[in-house]
Order: sequence, then C-alpha cells, then structure tokens
Amino acid sequence: MISLVGSISNPVGTKAETKDDYELLKGSTLVKRGFAHMQKHGVIMDVTNVEQAQIAEEGGAVSVMVLDKLPYDVRKAGGVARTASLKVIESILDHVTIPVMAKCRIGHTYEARVLQDTGVDMVDESEVLTPADESRHVWKWDFTTPFVNGAKNLGEALRRIEEGASMIRTKGEPGTGNVAEAIKHFKILDNEISAIKVHFQSGNDQELIKIARGLRVSYDLVLEVGRLGRLPVVNFAAGGIATPADAANMISIGCDGIFVGSGIYKAEDPIQRARAIVLATTFYDDAKVVSEAQKMVDEKKSMLGLDISTLEYRMQDRGGDA
Amino acid sequence: MISLVGSISNPVGTKAETKDDYELLKGSTLVKRGFAHMQKHGVIMDVTNVEQAQIAEEGGAVSVMVLDKLPYDVRKAGGVARTASLKVIESILDHVTIPVMAKCRIGHTYEARVLQDTGVDMVDESEVLTPADESRHVWKWDFTTPFVNGAKNLGEALRRIEEGASMIRTKGEPGTGNVAEAIKHFKILDNEISAIKVHFQSGNDQELIKIARGLRVSYDLVLEVGRLGRLPVVNFAAGGIATPADAANMISIGCDGIFVGSGIYKAEDPIQRARAIVLATTFYDDAKVVSEAQKMVDEKKSMLGLDISTLEYRMQDRGGDA
Repeated sequence: MISLVGSISNPVGTKAETKDDYELLKGSTLVKRGFAHMQKHGVIMDVTNVEQAQIAEEGGAVSVMVLDKLPYDVRKAGGVARTASLKVIESILDHVTIPVMAKCRIGHTYEARVLQDTGVDMVDESEVLTPADESRHVWKWDFTTPFVNGAKNLGEALRRIEEGASMIRTKGEPGTGNVAEAIKHFKILDNEISAIKVHFQSGNDQELIKIARGLRVSYDLVLEVGRLGRLPVVNFAAGGIATPADAANMISIGCDGIFVGSGIYKAEDPIQRARAIVLATTFYDDAKVVSEAQKMVDEKKSMLGLDISTLEYRMQDRGGDA
Repeated sequence: MISLVGSISNPVGTKAETKDDYELLKGSTLVKRGFAHMQKHGVIMDVTNVEQAQIAEEGGAVSVMVLDKLPYDVRKAGGVARTASLKVIESILDHVTIPVMAKCRIGHTYEARVLQDTGVDMVDESEVLTPADESRHVWKWDFTTPFVNGAKNLGEALRRIEEGASMIRTKGEPGTGNVAEAIKHFKILDNEISAIKVHFQSGNDQELIKIARGLRVSYDLVLEVGRLGRLPVVNFAAGGIATPADAANMISIGCDGIFVGSGIYKAEDPIQRARAIVLATTFYDDAKVVSEAQKMVDEKKSMLGLDISTLEYRMQDRGGDA
C-alpha cells in the first residue's frame, strides 16, 4: 500500500476507478486524514513571507499557511487573488521545520498540482482567493497531498469530504477580525450533526436518506456522521479570529483547532499575540490561563477589523452552492 | 445467509444497521433483484379479480398485478385509491400459478407490510394509488419481498433503487391508453444514463459527482450506472400501453419488459389482446410477428383512452420530487 504525504507526483499511466484504487494509487485516506488530525488543538497561522513564518514557528504555530496577501489585504487590494509565489513557498519550506500549507483557488486543479509538486504538506482550496470554478471543486482524491476546505454548513463540509478533503474549517468571514461568522457556521454544522445523530440512533432510515438528499451527499456518508456523532475529519475554526479569547471560545464550543489569518500580522504585537493565541488554544478550559493570555495582548493593538454588513463581497459565499 | 423472497415476516428483535446486515436479515439484494430479472421480456398484467387473473395467466402473462380498480377506473371514481382487498389478493394467489404482485400507496409502510405478510411476490409502490406520503417513500430494504417503483427520470429511478427497489418501471400516464409519456420517460432516463457513461469512460470525476448531487443520490450509485451503462435493476415500460405495437415499440427502445394496466380489460377483446401483447413483446424484433399480433386486435375494440392535456391530475407527478 503506497501512502505518502508530500511531493510525490501522480503516478503516470495509472487510473483510479474505485475507492480502493485511490487508496492504492493516491495515498491512503487514513494517512491524509491522519496528518490533519495531528494538527488537532493547534494553531495554524497565515504568513506571507519567511520572516512571518519564523515568527509563527517561534510563537508555537503547528503549521503555517502561505498566501500572497493576508485576507484583510486581499480585500483592500481587490483584483484577482491567486496562489502565492512558489519562490516564497520554497524559501519558507527551507526556513521553518513545522509543516507548510498553501492556498489554491477553488476548482483550480493546476494551482493545486504545482503546490503538491513544490512539496507543501497541505493544500487549502480557499475562498480567500478568487474562485476559478464556482460550481466544481478540485477532485482531491487525485492528490497525495491532503486538502483542507472551508464550509459554512454540514452540506458544504460533507460535499468537500466526498471530494477528498481531509480537514474542514469554518469559512467565517476572512479578514474582518469578527469571529461571529465562524461561530455561526460552526453552530449550524453542529446542530445539523445532532439531527442526524438522533435519526441514526432511532434507526429512522427514511429521514436519514431525506437528509442525505437535502445535503446532496451519499447516504453512507450521512450514516458515518450519525455513527461518529461528528465529521469524519477534523474541523478547525477560521475567519475573523483576532484575540486569545476568540481562540479559546472556538475550541470550547467544539472546534478541533484554529486558523488565524489577518489577526496576528494585522495587529501591532504579532509575536506576543501569536504566543498568546497558542496559549489560549492549548489551555482553553483553564479560565486563568486564558485570562493571562488575553492580558498578553493589548486590545488597542488588535486589528481594527471590518464591519461585515458593509463588506463589498462575502468570501464565505464563494463556491458554497457547489 | 438468509435470503428468501415471499411471505417471511421481518425477524423480531433484529435491526439492520449496515448494508451487510440488510443482506443477512432481510433477503439478499441478489435474490430480490434476481426475481425481478426473471420477469425480463415478459408482460405483467393489471387484474382486479380471479377471473381477470386467470385470463392473464392463460394469455401468457409472466405475473399479475392486483389492484382494486384499473387505473382508468381509478380516475373515473375519484376519491382515495388504496391497496386492494386482501381477500381478493388471497383468492388470486390460490387460483393462479404465476407470481402475484400488488400495489401499495407511496410511502405507506403498513400497506406494504400487510402485502408482504399476505405472501405477494412483489410490491408495487405505485402512483396509481393516492400517495400516503408525498416526500418519503417506503424504506424497502426492511422487506424480504422485492419492490417495483415508478420513475420518470434517472433521479427518481436511482432514488428508488437507493431505498431498496429491485425493479423500476416508467411512470407513463396510467389509465390514458397513450404510450407517449412512457416513451418520453424512458428516453429521458436513457439520455441521462448516456451522459454518465461518457463521463465515466473519460474518468471525469468532477462531472460525475456534480451529476450525483443533481440527482440527489450517492456517488457510488452513479459510478455503478456508468460502469454498467444501464440501471442496476430491470426497467419495465408502464403507463398507457394499449396495443401489441405499443408493447413491441417499448421493448425495441430498450425496456426490459411491459406492464399493461387498463389496456387489456378496458378493451373489448381482453383474451385476444393479452395473447397479442405477449406475442408482440416476445417477438418484438420480428416485424412479421408483431404485424400478426397487431392483426389479432381490432382498433375499434381498443380502449378509447383519455387526452393527457385535459386530465384532472397527473399520476406521474406523485412522489416525483422525493
């Protein structure tokens, strides 16, 4: 069984036709989901250059996520946001020891391929970049590198998992510094899972298949959610997390970990803030430690953020119907 | 492996949780689909009493379908159409040697259970009767008796198969004597299957999963259709078939067999017509035999039929969205 995560190119002349073929040819689901699982209870930080990546590593990030501009700056800059410069990604790979992730556009199979060949540890098919295909996502089973995808409800999460995603994150509303949307999306997903659990436990097949059809996913996947009482992959919080208390709050409601985007480098105290957010994430259930972490940052130095109601567009809606 | 078709009640105290459990507890898919397959290239005739059932058997029907009133009479009578009298079903079971099928209302699990316990060989969850639940069909995996369901497109057919149907028939427009709707539905389904086949052969997973989502069925089922190039169960023509030529036409375009409803006993020459339709169905590819069969019936004795555009309601739309 070949199951390698990383920079292995697709085997030439082989074609996966069944799930088992994919397991053999493209790296096992267990390994890909397992890599994502190892990030659990960690903080993954957005970075745009080597300097920021080193601050993230020093601050205790479990991984860095490379992108060309922070979500806040993507909004300000406008235009088309694409995957980061491969030179930047390569130099970050050379300068940090923690895993390196990078974003590709939704549905952009070839951006994902170049990232895989560059050797990133995980690809984020992200709504922060401008979608390349609003109605089709990358077919992620074709890759040896695991993928993370955003979701704002259970249907989106399961559709992405069915395409091969090994990790889900809430979509939130990136670059705003407002955690409200991330909380909302997580709760929606959580309530939808609860409904499935109830029907699964009472053996109500008619309702379970009705739910599967409503979510436009396979019945077996809904049964798996019912059996597990959760997603079959880890589910991180992302979008608008700016303070240690934000991070602790997301973990306490059930998220498996945290992505911090603009919240660190758009603040005036990035190193302190990185450390404080990691501290609050790790010790989220100890109010004292979270308080200490919160004291390490100064609200006056937090990113000011953006009012969601006045945004020009919402990143969370990108690719959502697909 | 317990796999019996017929009048075995559900095992008490056992609960199927996976597909394998269903196989063990409720009769194997192979046996249930196999029974349906044995009807292939045959004619199944609607009957309402023992006399008609005996005419059907003598005329060469492979099975009879018991219902309280013929579809044409259901339309005329109005009111609520329910499953047939169990006494009638039992007496038909006692008087013919061919398999006996009976109709239950869409979504009416208990009508289906009493039919199973009465010992019918197949249950038709039929839009000819008044639906008991417009948005949920019977969960057919719970039964040892195989089911047939109507469909007017691939989505309906696959959703019914995913609920456990072992046979599909076109919905047509029952009781009208107009074969046009049956042809239309079969062609729609056939074209949808062709599209899947093309994407399957080129390995276009993105399109295949998009199709699965559009049809609201499991991805694996779409792959199976792509691999087989047809439905995984037999697909019969039904609704509006009135003459031998109608029957031969349906088989020639690819249907696996024929249901004749009002077409025989609403004609003035039922015995002759039954024989002629069976003849034309069996030798559909021999124009001479079909001509002879067509000569056996007199168009002046055919049911007059009903104009579809002036119908009060369309049976084909019942339960179609579910």
